[in-house]
Amino acid sequence: MDPYVIEMNGSGDHVSVGGRSSTLGKAKGRKARWSVKPSDMANNTFNPIRAIVDSMKVKPNPDKTMISLSIGDPTVFGNLPTDPEVTQAMKDALDSGKYNGYAPSIGFLSSREEVASYYHCPEAPLEAKDVILTSGCSQAIELCLAVLANPGQNILVPRPGFSLYRTLAESMGIEVKLYNLLPEKSWEIDLKQLESLIDEKTACLIVNNPSNPCGSVFSRSHLQKILAVAARQCVPILADEIYGDMVFSGSKFEPLATLSTNVPILSCGGLAKRWLVPGWRLGWILIHDRRDIFGNEIRDGLVKLSQRILGPCTIVQGALKSILRRTPQEFYHDTLSFLKSNADLCYGALAAIPGLRPVRPSGAMYLMVEIEMEHFPEFENDVEFTERLIAEQSVHCLPATCFEYPNFFRVVITVPEVMMLEACSRIQEFCEQHYHHAEGSPEECDK
Amino acid sequence: MDPYVIEMNGSGDHVSVGGRSSTLGKAKGRKARWSVKPSDMANNTFNPIRAIVDSMKVKPNPDKTMISLSIGDPTVFGNLPTDPEVTQAMKDALDSGKYNGYAPSIGFLSSREEVASYYHCPEAPLEAKDVILTSGCSQAIELCLAVLANPGQNILVPRPGFSLYRTLAESMGIEVKLYNLLPEKSWEIDLKQLESLIDEKTACLIVNNPSNPCGSVFSRSHLQKILAVAARQCVPILADEIYGDMVFSGSKFEPLATLSTNVPILSCGGLAKRWLVPGWRLGWILIHDRRDIFGNEIRDGLVKLSQRILGPCTIVQGALKSILRRTPQEFYHDTLSFLKSNADLCYGALAAIPGLRPVRPSGAMYLMVEIEMEHFPEFENDVEFTERLIAEQSVHCLPATCFEYPNFFRVVITVPEVMMLEACSRIQEFCEQHYHHAEGSPEECDK
Repeated sequence: MDPYVIEMNGSGDHVSVGGRSSTLGKAKGRKARWSVKPSDMANNTFNPIRAIVDSMKVKPNPDKTMISLSIGDPTVFGNLPTDPEVTQAMKDALDSGKYNGYAPSIGFLSSREEVASYYHCPEAPLEAKDVILTSGCSQAIELCLAVLANPGQNILVPRPGFSLYRTLAESMGIEVKLYNLLPEKSWEIDLKQLESLIDEKTACLIVNNPSNPCGSVFSRSHLQKILAVAARQCVPILADEIYGDMVFSGSKFEPLATLSTNVPILSCGGLAKRWLVPGWRLGWILIHDRRDIFGNEIRDGLVKLSQRILGPCTIVQGALKSILRRTPQEFYHDTLSFLKSNADLCYGALAAIPGLRPVRPSGAMYLMVEIEMEHFPEFENDVEFTERLIAEQSVHCLPATCFEYPNFFRVVITVPEVMMLEACSRIQEFCEQHYHHAEGSPEECDK
Repeated sequence: MDPYVIEMNGSGDHVSVGGRSSTLGKAKGRKARWSVKPSDMANNTFNPIRAIVDSMKVKPNPDKTMISLSIGDPTVFGNLPTDPEVTQAMKDALDSGKYNGYAPSIGFLSSREEVASYYHCPEAPLEAKDVILTSGCSQAIELCLAVLANPGQNILVPRPGFSLYRTLAESMGIEVKLYNLLPEKSWEIDLKQLESLIDEKTACLIVNNPSNPCGSVFSRSHLQKILAVAARQCVPILADEIYGDMVFSGSKFEPLATLSTNVPILSCGGLAKRWLVPGWRLGWILIHDRRDIFGNEIRDGLVKLSQRILGPCTIVQGALKSILRRTPQEFYHDTLSFLKSNADLCYGALAAIPGLRPVRPSGAMYLMVEIEMEHFPEFENDVEFTERLIAEQSVHCLPATCFEYPNFFRVVITVPEVMMLEACSRIQEFCEQHYHHAEGSPEECDK
């Protein structure tokens, strides 16, 4: 046995077991034995998508090429490149040699000015001091939750909703309360149920519009009703608007802050989706606080938290001015018309399949599909349904259990049109093969 | 008054004050009054350098151009550009169009393989699975502390030392215990005092070599003694080696992990200093765990924590291969010979000034100078000394109080040689004007 062991009794005092007492007295009751365990925070950091997808132990059908409709990354198929101006802006920033050093932890003033003037409007004025640049929208959301909520408090999160909210909150000991989105109302919020969740420990309300995974876009009047609840209950809002402006013709994106003068709002966004460069990790927080309810305390808190790991890559910061000013309107327009046509195509195809009920999206890059489980008795749930869809048709969709919404699956609509069509026809074949009429399965009919 | 107020009594029940009882019953005791306060984490996130520097309310001497020797950013003066190969690697990554999408949260496999093979050696083998890419070395350190320590545990941090360790630890509720570095021994660790700090709550020992702010480089034998303490007390090590390989001719950098087969070590590094691009925020964690003491738990913990904000900018990740393979040796050599000549120049000049005692550095970008305060009775401490140095000579050095080491100041040696010389002569003039002989100040002599 190790001659240099320090044993500890309950009281925390210790006795020598043949150790060198000189050092002994110092190593206060430490057992000289290796035991390194991950922290509670690490153990509590849980990514449901990873957990569910990793547990889906199925091989795709070797006779069919894999079509993945599961990844919310518009760049994976190469059909949606960013604009040449965006790439050129990065090269110019590199060539200038001015953006290799440290930036302030909240970002270069000039870059924050650009974001402020880009999103400034009379209804929701912005200056550089209202902008904090972050390492992607994920860090923007992390900083907002970290500054607004203490362990033991709770936040209100949409169901179905983006899983990162829970991952971040629970890693910080913040409780998640789920409010319902209503598919029959184009995923509007069940406001009564939302308000019923609010208690004295509610630190903030997360509103994600346009929505991942729903692809829904809230109307002005619905947003006003949400703001009314927040105002009545005095709950600040974290507006996840990373898909802002990514709405199809026919609907309109209204930045939440433009509809309220009294509710304090932290709006999170970034370059990831609209400029099609999610890997670059350039996000931002827009602080809307015209009634001075956040005050300097929350602003200072965000600045202090930003100093923990400093800001985003300075080259992207240096490119921001040109990216925001020089990206041509056609780029945005072309992206959206592609997404809309793919959305219509996918919606139309799936709506015609017995047993499926897609919800038509108005923006973002997603479409949610209800599985009428009673017609697919072979499958326990959406996870099994999507597992078998991979095994038989090599089509990968995310089961909406990943978004805490069982019996739906999410389709990513950024894939090339031909893949979209092929995927839909494979899903149709799959459903036809497994569809059972509600009155019972064929076997039962035989009796 | 707001007709819709909910009042709360001690028990948490509530009574209506002309409110709509329907909603009333639901808002469990919430007071409908705005009160948004920053979290404890935000309040506990404290950057001593910011606090001290911001409180230094002095104007530089208008007759002398400002010379800043305070910022640990080698790029600010333009005299230390990164290598053209490094910039070209970024442009190639942009042109490839392959690095705009999301990477795995711990970084692209190919990029991690490059880092692994770059730092692999027989004494401390590395594979891709041992590498985690982070948003700068700051996030590398944050993830290591977050996975190793729970609130209420403590970590051992060098004094003088980089202030981020305390900033990160205290924001997470981790206690900081300071171990002493000995200037008379070229800033070696006081090992006895270090070991005396270890108790059952000690989660890790931070070893920063080469050192910021000291510019010291530990010898192999000293590193072995540090490892012996860690092995005896079973304390894992966080090795902050961001200045690794940045040592002057005559001394040698020994990666800590190459000297131990049994102490689990998380080594943190990045592109910031050696490749002179601190703003790019590309850091890494190298996991050295040949005895499997961290095991999969700590590895998984790091992976899970990395999923909170995802990894560093994918363009820099894409450029990593070329940066590590194509940067010419002359680049590293030229940087180091410049730093050494500036260090010698600065050390020589300051060593000749009565009242100052510089400690000769062997690496990194810094030099620490002791102020013999008894010879400068006008000044309360190092903060006042450096304040007045700004006010009279427009030379800005960081008071070592920023590094928890009063009566020293830190000089950054990355400035152009002419500025270095000018700064030293101004410091000399300043000291000559304020130097008093130990037996007492002139006034006292008059008595």
